[in-house]
Amino acid sequence: MSDSNSEYIRSWLDAENWQRFPENLYAPIGYTLEAGGKHLRPTLLLMSNALLGGNVNASVRGAAMAVELFHNFTLLHDDVMDRAPMRRGRPTVYKRWNDNTAILSGDQMMIEAYRRLEQVEPQYLPEVLRLFGQMATGVCEGQQLDMDMETMRLTELNRRNAIDDYITMIERKTAYLIAYSLRLGAVLAGAEESDSQALYDFGIALGLAFQLQDDMLDVYGDPKTFGKQIGGDIAEGKKTFLTLCAYQNANPEQKALLVSTLEDSTLSRQDKYDRVRQLYDSLHVRQMTEEKIQYYTDSALKALDSVNADAELKQPLRQLAARMSERQY
Amino acid sequence: MSDSNSEYIRSWLDAENWQRFPENLYAPIGYTLEAGGKHLRPTLLLMSNALLGGNVNASVRGAAMAVELFHNFTLLHDDVMDRAPMRRGRPTVYKRWNDNTAILSGDQMMIEAYRRLEQVEPQYLPEVLRLFGQMATGVCEGQQLDMDMETMRLTELNRRNAIDDYITMIERKTAYLIAYSLRLGAVLAGAEESDSQALYDFGIALGLAFQLQDDMLDVYGDPKTFGKQIGGDIAEGKKTFLTLCAYQNANPEQKALLVSTLEDSTLSRQDKYDRVRQLYDSLHVRQMTEEKIQYYTDSALKALDSVNADAELKQPLRQLAARMSERQY
Repeated sequence: MSDSNSEYIRSWLDAENWQRFPENLYAPIGYTLEAGGKHLRPTLLLMSNALLGGNVNASVRGAAMAVELFHNFTLLHDDVMDRAPMRRGRPTVYKRWNDNTAILSGDQMMIEAYRRLEQVEPQYLPEVLRLFGQMATGVCEGQQLDMDMETMRLTELNRRNAIDDYITMIERKTAYLIAYSLRLGAVLAGAEESDSQALYDFGIALGLAFQLQDDMLDVYGDPKTFGKQIGGDIAEGKKTFLTLCAYQNANPEQKALLVSTLEDSTLSRQDKYDRVRQLYDSLHVRQMTEEKIQYYTDSALKALDSVNADAELKQPLRQLAARMSERQY
Repeated sequence: MSDSNSEYIRSWLDAENWQRFPENLYAPIGYTLEAGGKHLRPTLLLMSNALLGGNVNASVRGAAMAVELFHNFTLLHDDVMDRAPMRRGRPTVYKRWNDNTAILSGDQMMIEAYRRLEQVEPQYLPEVLRLFGQMATGVCEGQQLDMDMETMRLTELNRRNAIDDYITMIERKTAYLIAYSLRLGAVLAGAEESDSQALYDFGIALGLAFQLQDDMLDVYGDPKTFGKQIGGDIAEGKKTFLTLCAYQNANPEQKALLVSTLEDSTLSRQDKYDRVRQLYDSLHVRQMTEEKIQYYTDSALKALDSVNADAELKQPLRQLAARMSERQY
């Protein structure tokens, strides 16, 4: 992540004014954005644009802000739906204000994302609007698939290929926005379709690796570097790649034990974590997950290799991919 | 409202397929749209387009569907925020499904609205996207102003010009989408800016008249033709034009009586309605509201007169304005 990209994004975010009327609509947007985050999506858009010879112009700025705003909109509404009280170390919008404020400010945040596309030059606008719409649709579908999966019992997931369904879900919910950010950066550099597609493929694989790493750190992360409390997914009985992987490879006895442990509301958080982790360990779930992350990281790098650009220029994206699949936070 | 316009809109809505996966995301969108409604906004877009010599092409279809979808998105999310259990004679989405489904399907519905703009010809797209964004922003601001007003006590509205605030609120919440629909129709006919502006002004005035008529029918409507139960606003203690008008013109004694009656939770619905209506009657609130509706209707027709088009061709819009300000339903 080059310094100049961070500076661009920081300065664009700083130039936004959220002290607008009515205050109850705009203050939660400012509150959400000032909490920071890694600005991964606009950074990827800028990196992909630079790789293919683009300039940081009004179109690039508009699209970069649009993906950042859209991402934050999804966090705002997801937190309401998931009843998540904290985000980036602070109360979420629905906790700090209320549900209605979170719903309406989230709506306005999505509109603000689309409004940043007004800055895109007319020659690129039809394509950018089309790609943005595809991305937005996929992200909502991913969130719905996630909610559908959460309302199913673990035993119900047995009847079909739950891991494939899970990958489809995180591809849309997480990988799409990463992949489309890269594609938008390429399109705005006037890239060939094959290069835009390769960067999109890079982004999908990278996004999948990123989410699986997230799933793994929740169980095997170092509490010192992870930032969040370890074992949150297990405490909530959330179905992650690790859960499904364990379930698929377990014998009937282990399956029953996994389900009863995850659904046992009388267990302490620590006991539940210890028992589930022990099951994961005996089923080599960590190793299988790491292999899958490596597979997606390799796929990502292969896609990046196929982009028709100077290998030297690909270094920042290559490094970012490596950092993302090795991260401990 | 000409028959051919209705047929176009009907056929476009019928051509949409909401039996898509994931079902829990798309079924509520289909459910909302199949309940019907008057399709006022796409109809106005088609009428304005026809008035200025436009053809019913892909751009017009895309924009017409976009405003209809956006309108229905606002109903879906507003019903969650207002906890409204019924809409068009059926349970609302959050009642039939749940809050999360209503939030996420609403989000997708707004995205679908924007996606219909992908059908707009490139030459018109920058302007159409800009206008749509302005409209969407205004509608959310209007909903926020409405919620802000509802959380204030009636006595608090005393300190500034509550009626002006109310007009600002309904201008954004209700009139914007009507006015922008007309403007989009004009723009897509390649209209002069002055004509687009005049039709926009027509729409704002028409929208204000429409909302005030709504407020009045809730108190003075004929139960046989109104469709909804009379007195709903009074039962909910909602601040409408009539309430604010009464409050502004009341003497201190009447003010106190109005506030205590509206806030009295021990009164029966009928008693509350009777007492408030009696106060309205003694303060000539009906007459003042009718005068205001007439004022806005006249303003609308004056704006329509100024449009540079054959007077004969303006007849459908003129009739629609007359019907809207005389309607009893």
